[in-house]
Amino acid sequence: MHVVVPFDARDPKTRLAPVLDPDERRDFARAMLDDVCRAVEETGHEPTVLATAGIDVEWPVEVDDRSLSEAINAVLARRDGPVTVVMADLALTTPEALDRVFEAEGEVVLVPGRSGGTNVVLARHPDFRVDYHGVSIRDHRERAAVAGRETTSVDSFRLSTDVDDPSDLVEVLLHSEGAAAAWLVDHGFDVHAEDDGVTTVRRD
Amino acid sequence: MHVVVPFDARDPKTRLAPVLDPDERRDFARAMLDDVCRAVEETGHEPTVLATAGIDVEWPVEVDDRSLSEAINAVLARRDGPVTVVMADLALTTPEALDRVFEAEGEVVLVPGRSGGTNVVLARHPDFRVDYHGVSIRDHRERAAVAGRETTSVDSFRLSTDVDDPSDLVEVLLHSEGAAAAWLVDHGFDVHAEDDGVTTVRRD
Repeated sequence: MHVVVPFDARDPKTRLAPVLDPDERRDFARAMLDDVCRAVEETGHEPTVLATAGIDVEWPVEVDDRSLSEAINAVLARRDGPVTVVMADLALTTPEALDRVFEAEGEVVLVPGRSGGTNVVLARHPDFRVDYHGVSIRDHRERAAVAGRETTSVDSFRLSTDVDDPSDLVEVLLHSEGAAAAWLVDHGFDVHAEDDGVTTVRRD
Repeated sequence: MHVVVPFDARDPKTRLAPVLDPDERRDFARAMLDDVCRAVEETGHEPTVLATAGIDVEWPVEVDDRSLSEAINAVLARRDGPVTVVMADLALTTPEALDRVFEAEGEVVLVPGRSGGTNVVLARHPDFRVDYHGVSIRDHRERAAVAGRETTSVDSFRLSTDVDDPSDLVEVLLHSEGAAAAWLVDHGFDVHAEDDGVTTVRRD
């Protein structure tokens, strides 16, 4: 199985700017990428990082500075056989969660992200293409249906949790023991229950 | 299996006040309760609604106006055999997702909710008690560990999505075909992709 992990190597995780400066965002994004790639590796597959610029990681890197959808579609167009695309900010990823995707049947297997995103795509049909713009999970389902392709969804909290906003850091601290969670702890982040029942992160 | 669905029959879903008036919040909360109870029923179990006041539903109702944790712990204390507690605002619940909980091994099976909550508890050990205050998933895990109980987590996006805030309505519209989703459509709600890539709901 060819597993691609797209990564913004230039200015990742801009929505975390309220709590992390640019260098920290890069470091934290790299820690999440490491967690995702390691989980892929532990399923017995080798991840390929599809980066917008050259980066130094322990897995094969392919550089493509086009938009996310264009870069992924170029991979889908040229590969024979199934391709899985796993977002690099799924800090809660585990090998068990990924195995549920790899074992799911269907020509197109999708894992929805929060707020209409598509966090994992497994394309077993050579004609399937992605479009991450807008409400992508709806578009991907419709696109597959129009083409007569069978779509399967995998129901996973871990894989549906992409880490975009400061509020998502709570999930990393509570549900991961990987590099990203360790990075947050090292940088003074902690889970805090507010009086109104809302749980947030605090930084020392 | 005794399945309890706790329900605030008085002033439910206060955090939806920015988009729904009090009557609408009651109606929408009832639609979600119906979806959850129907999914429980489709697994072959009968739900009992544990309500803070009398309500008219097609399932058995037990009234207890104490706090959520106190009311649930009273059930856990007096029942013999396993008890499952499923929150009434899990509008994305499916029988398949619930079956994964019922089939999971362990003395205490937990499904985390977003932001540190605990959306489903299956207690197979008679001594287990809940405390929904604060970061409950962490407290439930620690409590089980201290008592030497084996805890299992079920990884489900559907069951981790409790509908509290207006932003959660996107998930109902995109991932459910139940009564709550139909209610939202009937009341003019639609999914809308903003220019900045964030997906929200709009109301006509």
